[in-house]
Amino acid sequence: MKIFAYGIRKDEEPALKEWMEKHPNVEVDFTDELLTPETAKYAKGADAVDVYQQLDYTPETLTALHDLGINKMSLRNVGTDNIDFDTARKFDFQISNVPVYSPNAIAEHSMIQLSRLLRQTKAMDAKVAKHDLRWAPTIGREMRMQTVGVIGTGHIGRVAIKILQGFGAKVIAYDKFQNEEIAKQGLYVDSLDDLYAQADAISLYVPGVKENDRMINADAIAKMKDGVVIVNVARGNLVDTDAVIAGLDSGKVAAFAMDVYEDEVGLFNEDWSNKEFPDARIADLIDRENVLVTPHTAFYTTKAVYEMVTQSMDAALAFIEGEQPAIAVEY
Amino acid sequence: MKIFAYGIRKDEEPALKEWMEKHPNVEVDFTDELLTPETAKYAKGADAVDVYQQLDYTPETLTALHDLGINKMSLRNVGTDNIDFDTARKFDFQISNVPVYSPNAIAEHSMIQLSRLLRQTKAMDAKVAKHDLRWAPTIGREMRMQTVGVIGTGHIGRVAIKILQGFGAKVIAYDKFQNEEIAKQGLYVDSLDDLYAQADAISLYVPGVKENDRMINADAIAKMKDGVVIVNVARGNLVDTDAVIAGLDSGKVAAFAMDVYEDEVGLFNEDWSNKEFPDARIADLIDRENVLVTPHTAFYTTKAVYEMVTQSMDAALAFIEGEQPAIAVEY
Ligand SMILES: NC(=O)c1ccc[n+]([C@@H]2O[C@H](COP(=O)([O-])OP(=O)(O)OC[C@H]3O[C@@H](n4cnc5c(N)ncnc54)[C@H](O)[C@@H]3O)[C@@H](O)[C@H]2O)c1
Ligand SMILES: NC(=O)c1ccc[n+]([C@@H]2O[C@H](COP(=O)([O-])OP(=O)(O)OC[C@H]3O[C@@H](n4cnc5c(N)ncnc54)[C@H](O)[C@@H]3O)[C@@H](O)[C@H]2O)c1
Repeated sequence: MKIFAYGIRKDEEPALKEWMEKHPNVEVDFTDELLTPETAKYAKGADAVDVYQQLDYTPETLTALHDLGINKMSLRNVGTDNIDFDTARKFDFQISNVPVYSPNAIAEHSMIQLSRLLRQTKAMDAKVAKHDLRWAPTIGREMRMQTVGVIGTGHIGRVAIKILQGFGAKVIAYDKFQNEEIAKQGLYVDSLDDLYAQADAISLYVPGVKENDRMINADAIAKMKDGVVIVNVARGNLVDTDAVIAGLDSGKVAAFAMDVYEDEVGLFNEDWSNKEFPDARIADLIDRENVLVTPHTAFYTTKAVYEMVTQSMDAALAFIEGEQPAIAVEY
Repeated sequence: MKIFAYGIRKDEEPALKEWMEKHPNVEVDFTDELLTPETAKYAKGADAVDVYQQLDYTPETLTALHDLGINKMSLRNVGTDNIDFDTARKFDFQISNVPVYSPNAIAEHSMIQLSRLLRQTKAMDAKVAKHDLRWAPTIGREMRMQTVGVIGTGHIGRVAIKILQGFGAKVIAYDKFQNEEIAKQGLYVDSLDDLYAQADAISLYVPGVKENDRMINADAIAKMKDGVVIVNVARGNLVDTDAVIAGLDSGKVAAFAMDVYEDEVGLFNEDWSNKEFPDARIADLIDRENVLVTPHTAFYTTKAVYEMVTQSMDAALAFIEGEQPAIAVEY
């Protein structure tokens, strides 16, 4: 039994090596290169491949695997949009992904960023860095004093609620499909409008499906409290960035944290430090003291990476052993 | 009835004005200047003064108040070391302070800083600021995966425990005098040594009394786990700063947050941005990516300031009305 893993980053190696030690009967080899028609040959002799990349799994790539007798592919991430499913179907590919690796990674990040905005840590850190050690006027607001509106009470939103409750914040929530436990706690308001009217801070945990596109637009912001704080770690297209910028400029929006961005593809996870930065809007947001930008790193924790590696390798092994892993992709 | 308030900062004005609106029968006047023998005359005609300053309340200052017929003084802060109690006694001064204003302010700050150290936000923010939007290798650790050692389970430590539990972290605690509720939860370990051996991160909430002086020294650090994270928002003298620096240099200590510092008096709450910075040790710590320095700002929240203003004004009014407020200082 052999699994070949592509695109293994340095931070994934510890988890992969741990998995290898636990499975001495499985041969594992890996590269930091991505899976392409050219690199497919590295997997020769393997029964399955383990992969993670933005790069497309093209007909050529899948055919190259097929030509090596490989039709089992386990993704270490969620997204499958970059797979050519027609070719996959033709060659009877068995595919798995990792839909839930660590809701806490994302929920924690969102709440850390919210607490930082309330505390004005960016302004305070900047003062300290230049040796201005005066505290006034950089005063903080406490999490426990806020009414926080949680939009979407799925895997991640529910973890965020627990964190908020630990801080002692007042939580109000909205979801199209209510979660029983959250309903029992009486946290749901009846509508987004109710949530907008009551929340001092709002954090998003809904998918970026079409109906949610730009749900946070000028209309929605107008319904929010003056000085509202907005956090988006969910999907970039949920937010009309220009509307938020207008809100920041007018003071309607006191602060904003974003881990995702409608135009993030090709912008995030690149090094622009020695190149012209291609997005003036983001450059401006990065420079603001009341805005925190992170480049889609909410998921990026040791625990999440551990889960992505371990779950995908387990699924690849299951395929090889003729089993159907729970995280097999139906297509 | 008249109260005169000294040293009122801009961020205190909203709370003071709210108090004034709620007490239309009390005349209130205030200045941003501190109380000195020279400014005492501003209080002429007042029945009590409301104060907050590092500056000493000298025999001259207290005598100046006495000469105006004023012997009621309400402090907006905790510390009373700067009061000349001999003179206060001579003139029968009634004095109050605010010993508990917002344990959450300090507990939240400590946990925000801890979560930031685990997430490497300083490194990530620096990358984003210079437009390097790559996430690797700046990987985060999740709060929920940590065993966090809480030393001191008084007012602030207990709030920190609640926050940690909201994150889903494993909490272990140590206190010389166990708190019933924390004991019931089974969080106490038997000794500091046990706590040092088990904790991935350690946060301090004990007073800076003599017996606790430099409790976090080279010996203690040697007993801790490799890669331990240390947070001190309690008192500067609890930590041997050189020992922590040695730990940071060797990698034994992965990260450190400090809001207090053994030599902070005369250093913190000053603007050194255009002057030579007098403390090379702190300058070095400020520049490190795995260290967060804040200049004793953990307490500095709108809620804490509200409590300091409101409780002190309530106490001043109580004195005037011949009552003994619960926060009267016995001396
Ligand atoms: N930044 C990151 O690194 C990162 C990583 C993973 C996931 N995410 C994003 O986080 C978000 C939440 O993920 P999850 O795992 O909790 O999803 P989930 O499917 O478990 O929960 C989503 C919830 O949103 C609700 N919902 C959908 N449309 C809604 C609407 N219009 N109004 C109210 N509720 C609505 C659903 O009923 C569901 O309860 C998703 O957008 C996901 O893409 C971000
Ligand atoms: N950074 C700031 O802005 C700020 C503001 C307020 C208070 N503080 C500091 O925070 C700390 C905690 O304050 P609090 O209000 O929770 O105090 P507290 O008196 O309520 O609790 C202190 C606890 O420490 C315990 N203790 C004392 N010595 C101990 C030892 N050697 N080992 C174990 N436990 C010990 C006591 O039994 C008590 O339970 C204090 O040092 C205080 O000065 C900092």
